[in-house]
Amino acid sequence: MTTADLRSIYQAYLDCLNAQDWPRLGKFVDEKVSHNGRPLGLEGYQAMLESDFQQIPDLRFNTELLVCKPPLIAARLKFDCTPKGSFLSLPVNGRTVSFAENVFYKFEGDRIKTVWSVIDKTAIEGQLS
Amino acid sequence: MTTADLRSIYQAYLDCLNAQDWPRLGKFVDEKVSHNGRPLGLEGYQAMLESDFQQIPDLRFNTELLVCKPPLIAARLKFDCTPKGSFLSLPVNGRTVSFAENVFYKFEGDRIKTVWSVIDKTAIEGQLS
Repeated sequence: MTTADLRSIYQAYLDCLNAQDWPRLGKFVDEKVSHNGRPLGLEGYQAMLESDFQQIPDLRFNTELLVCKPPLIAARLKFDCTPKGSFLSLPVNGRTVSFAENVFYKFEGDRIKTVWSVIDKTAIEGQLS
Repeated sequence: MTTADLRSIYQAYLDCLNAQDWPRLGKFVDEKVSHNGRPLGLEGYQAMLESDFQQIPDLRFNTELLVCKPPLIAARLKFDCTPKGSFLSLPVNGRTVSFAENVFYKFEGDRIKTVWSVIDKTAIEGQLS
């Protein structure tokens, strides 16, 4: 797997999320995927993403930074979006907020096996105060 | 600058932080460094780090993951430490907490010019509840 291949797979994964094309998710995500130490599996991972889109109807995944060295990718994702109610236990309630997620992915073959994600909660708090 | 060179410079930077060897910080950090969009400069960056060590006397920087592609490095840093008082506005007050920081660095030559850092505040909240 070359760096260019992995970058291209990752962009196709983000396109899949933005299209909410859940039947294709298994093309990019391993059956045994774990997220922040939780062994969600593909089904639980899809449920997490579907819930994210339910809570944030205008959710869109865009990369601000990308560092790729197979089998790892690190991405800084930038969000400008409008959570309907609470988000990360914060009362966002329909305000539009901007924040980043710094996230690492470890691939096994051409699928994501492990995710370590941190969302910038402090930035959102600063926009609600 | 090769990947191996940059990894080695980054490890020396972390060693410098862990030694609190502030006179050497300018070897690794640009005079015009910015951190999460704030143009701190070297002096402000050092002040931020010194303040971190004052608030968290047992602070130690350890990498859990590293992805390097010059001029970018992405690191997941793992902390087990004991903030004396508040940390990220949370009343930690001398408890030992474990959390990660997912952080990107852009180098200019052999010095850090731009930092995009996100600390896992949600993980700390979970340990205080």
